[in-house]
Amino acid sequence: MTYKAPLAEIGFALRHGASLQAAITEGLFGELTLDDVDAVLAEAGRFAGEVIAPLNRIGDTFGTPFKDGAVTTPPGYKEAYRGWREGGWNSLAAPLEWGGQALPQIVNAACTEMWHSASVAFANGPMLTMAAIDALNAHGSAELKKTYLEKLVSGEWMGTMQLTEPQAGSDVGALRTRAERTAAGAYRLTGQKIFITYGEHDLTDNIIHFVLARLPDAPAGTRGISLFLVPKFLLNPDGSLGARNDVRAHSVEHKLGIHGSPTCTMIFGDKGGATGYLIGAENAGMACMFTMMNRARLAVGLQGVGLAERATQQALAYARERRQGRAEGAKPGEMSPIIAHPDVRRMLLTMRALTQAARAVCYTTAMAIDCSERGRDEAARKAAHQRASLLTPVAKAFSTDIGNEVASLGVQVHGGMGFIEETGAAQHFRDARIAPIYEGTNGIQAIDLVTRKLPLAGGAAVAAHIDEMRGIARALAASNDPGLGCAAARLADAVASLERATHWLLKRLGTEPNAALAGATPYLRLFGLATGGCLLAKEALAALRLGADAPARVAVTRFFAENCAVHAGAIERTVVECAAGVMDADAALSA
Amino acid sequence: MTYKAPLAEIGFALRHGASLQAAITEGLFGELTLDDVDAVLAEAGRFAGEVIAPLNRIGDTFGTPFKDGAVTTPPGYKEAYRGWREGGWNSLAAPLEWGGQALPQIVNAACTEMWHSASVAFANGPMLTMAAIDALNAHGSAELKKTYLEKLVSGEWMGTMQLTEPQAGSDVGALRTRAERTAAGAYRLTGQKIFITYGEHDLTDNIIHFVLARLPDAPAGTRGISLFLVPKFLLNPDGSLGARNDVRAHSVEHKLGIHGSPTCTMIFGDKGGATGYLIGAENAGMACMFTMMNRARLAVGLQGVGLAERATQQALAYARERRQGRAEGAKPGEMSPIIAHPDVRRMLLTMRALTQAARAVCYTTAMAIDCSERGRDEAARKAAHQRASLLTPVAKAFSTDIGNEVASLGVQVHGGMGFIEETGAAQHFRDARIAPIYEGTNGIQAIDLVTRKLPLAGGAAVAAHIDEMRGIARALAASNDPGLGCAAARLADAVASLERATHWLLKRLGTEPNAALAGATPYLRLFGLATGGCLLAKEALAALRLGADAPARVAVTRFFAENCAVHAGAIERTVVECAAGVMDADAALSA
Repeated sequence: MTYKAPLAEIGFALRHGASLQAAITEGLFGELTLDDVDAVLAEAGRFAGEVIAPLNRIGDTFGTPFKDGAVTTPPGYKEAYRGWREGGWNSLAAPLEWGGQALPQIVNAACTEMWHSASVAFANGPMLTMAAIDALNAHGSAELKKTYLEKLVSGEWMGTMQLTEPQAGSDVGALRTRAERTAAGAYRLTGQKIFITYGEHDLTDNIIHFVLARLPDAPAGTRGISLFLVPKFLLNPDGSLGARNDVRAHSVEHKLGIHGSPTCTMIFGDKGGATGYLIGAENAGMACMFTMMNRARLAVGLQGVGLAERATQQALAYARERRQGRAEGAKPGEMSPIIAHPDVRRMLLTMRALTQAARAVCYTTAMAIDCSERGRDEAARKAAHQRASLLTPVAKAFSTDIGNEVASLGVQVHGGMGFIEETGAAQHFRDARIAPIYEGTNGIQAIDLVTRKLPLAGGAAVAAHIDEMRGIARALAASNDPGLGCAAARLADAVASLERATHWLLKRLGTEPNAALAGATPYLRLFGLATGGCLLAKEALAALRLGADAPARVAVTRFFAENCAVHAGAIERTVVECAAGVMDADAALSA
Repeated sequence: MTYKAPLAEIGFALRHGASLQAAITEGLFGELTLDDVDAVLAEAGRFAGEVIAPLNRIGDTFGTPFKDGAVTTPPGYKEAYRGWREGGWNSLAAPLEWGGQALPQIVNAACTEMWHSASVAFANGPMLTMAAIDALNAHGSAELKKTYLEKLVSGEWMGTMQLTEPQAGSDVGALRTRAERTAAGAYRLTGQKIFITYGEHDLTDNIIHFVLARLPDAPAGTRGISLFLVPKFLLNPDGSLGARNDVRAHSVEHKLGIHGSPTCTMIFGDKGGATGYLIGAENAGMACMFTMMNRARLAVGLQGVGLAERATQQALAYARERRQGRAEGAKPGEMSPIIAHPDVRRMLLTMRALTQAARAVCYTTAMAIDCSERGRDEAARKAAHQRASLLTPVAKAFSTDIGNEVASLGVQVHGGMGFIEETGAAQHFRDARIAPIYEGTNGIQAIDLVTRKLPLAGGAAVAAHIDEMRGIARALAASNDPGLGCAAARLADAVASLERATHWLLKRLGTEPNAALAGATPYLRLFGLATGGCLLAKEALAALRLGADAPARVAVTRFFAENCAVHAGAIERTVVECAAGVMDADAALSA
């Protein structure tokens, strides 16, 4: 079972869930038409399904062998990467100035989902390159941009993102990699980085590392971190590849999943120091890195969506073919396809509903980024930027949790076959498990949401979001569609729970930080359930209005509301009741 | 990080959660004292931690290579298995008559948990042997018992359980393996079985297969299935090993986890037919198999508990050592162990609370089995049998779901290290994934609970259980312990939700089967949350009464009630509201 891009679903979610149609009508994207978007998506879907997807299992079994400092990528990667570059997929949303196509972020997001459906392990490298392009474009000097951006945009070279060190994971401020100023205006880096995705590989002639390091006189913590561009090969004055820089991969990890994505330990400065070039100002590296990280966080959320989509497709195909038992009303003596059994239907609907909700959240986040860049005035751009900031941790954590839940259900639908590696369901389950960890663990996302994003604009950003969701829930109630069951009531309850929990947290942020932190993870889930449910409802309302695909969208909205969003009230209770139980439980954690 | 048996916790859960102390006081187990039990548990804990646990990672990396029909078990398995036999662990709960020790099932259950904590892959074979002993003892002819039971009880030979065929997984009635009567009174079996745990190995000289097959004139479906004992080696008249029987392993599966447990495809009758001996009556094989399966279902539930316990121990140890960030109130400039961070505490408390709840459910099920065998009169035994029947699917499914959830949290607590195989957290995550699938998928357990167990004794069995849980919730409320927070209210709500959902399902069983089936899985979760929460409360009340370990038990009960059982109301809604949304969703499942 391979992957077939769900173009109709993606197109609908873009147009109506994330309001791309309205944005195009308003002229946010200049001359771009929906037909243009559909053409890009169709071609991306073809490339993902035909070229990348077949590499997914090869990558899993071949891995990324490491020898004498070199990584060999799985058979077929090089050819696929060449096709990727030639297809222009690397430059989709990159600036025109550097050879990019300047398409909307939301179109790139839909494509990113497809790349990850096809193969997370393959797509990981390009994903980080795109994030690196954003950071360099936003913060790099004119000279650095001129030297490196075009080749990163074209995909001739790839980028990496190097934050983590053994003692500095979630706590980036604890990093020790050292950068010393040189007479020539450059820097010499020494230190070690771990868990570096695509830190070394054989897909491109050069690899451009984006590295966080600390100057000798830097203040402690995150305020003393600077971002450096460290190429694997230094460049000659004419731009051709010169000497090997003093940076190398030391080893490759043996991981639970994404075996086709090399995860490297990197050594800087074995021979006196790797040459690096400052991006942005000294000691202002965290701001640069956040540009890179926020883009990557949305992309990792889309990994969750992509894996969930692929697992759902595979489980549905299996459930239609596999026959066991006789469902109510089936012919006597005939086995039914297991999709006819209510409990299997519940699993499949859970997979579908969670996937579509996560997709809607991620696309809406991407649209907020587009509006923050292209909105018609400063106020609109600012509001959109706040919205993107608010939604990014939810897009990352909610969607990657869903990626895991859906991949696990995918195994379950397959029964015993799901546990056999050849079936492929187990690989999705393994591959999905990293996404809640990297680019900031989901716990970090929850803390970011509660402590940094809720207070944005004095709480106005989250209030505006909740108002919008409430409006959708009300419109759903007003639609009175009989197929919706209890959906409108459940979504209205969920939004009300979100609002109350938000107020409760905002009140405690300054005075009882631990009370807020103890409920951060359930709060993020509540935020995702309320938002995801309402965005599904928005799509269902559009479908009812247009008379297109309405029964499917109504059914998904109903299922999500009655089975997923219905938990909002319980989660609200957990948020507002849990703190003492979490903080006063030393006795339970001591044994 | 290896495994240390949590003897104090296990002892307390046995005595007070599952009422072993009361049962011993009442004389249910003759002369057995709590000191005897403690001595057995301590020795089991030592064997599990020192002998079995070190094999867990070896088994994972070595696997079970298959060549020329033979399986090689991982290095150290043979020595450990010899120690296992010599320690008497195989015969703990087996009948005295055949060399067993006739200890309570609940004591065996506690030991079973420890074997699985130490290594599910190693413990899988003995687990099925014990189930086979039960089936042969209950249904075998005097001659078969005399010939085989002693050697199975001593562990000289191991047993297997052979139900599944390619077309017959959840639907056992579809099996095709054929058994023909021979002149000698035996049978000749031909056919293929798949997914056979320990179907072939090198730990014992003989392997005794318990095989479901169909006679030529058998009725269709499950009423035409018979159970056969098929030894790998036939026996000479003097009991010594004779000719190789016509049964062989054809291949071994490449699986997501439990790599050290060989999963075989078995071929019967390549050379004309494997000799088999009927157990029980012709066409009555399902009843025999259910004896075996019910015991194995509880044991698989204990796999969930065991894996959850091990993952929790490992995560706790890591969270105490690993330092990142500064928690509220920590010294400036000093990193805190991550256990100090509220979000990490939430994960660890979730792990601990879910593990203890699942343990309490499984031990209580084992106690019901003991009472069904040893109760003082027929009425008590019958009621206990019904209780065991009611609780077994919950023990299996609720606990194995928890095994997965806790193992996944264990990965998350480790951050990036959790995704690296060498850390070991990932192996628990992989190993745990099979338990919701085998011995009847968790969906099958939910259907069994709703359609066969709720109607037991006209609903009186489940009503009695709910009454007991309500009594505990009331006693908790009456205790007024301030450390309990909202626990009493949440548990009372959960029991009330369970009661309403139960009535709703019982009403629909005859008239709207699909409505009942659509809610079966959430109902089982609701049953587990209400029951698990109340059993934790029962332990907390005992701790408060005794003044022993009370703060820890109160904290766990509180956390479980406020964060897990709090979902009962939402799940109740799902059960009673979901049916139309599940059954009328063809449009959402068609794409």
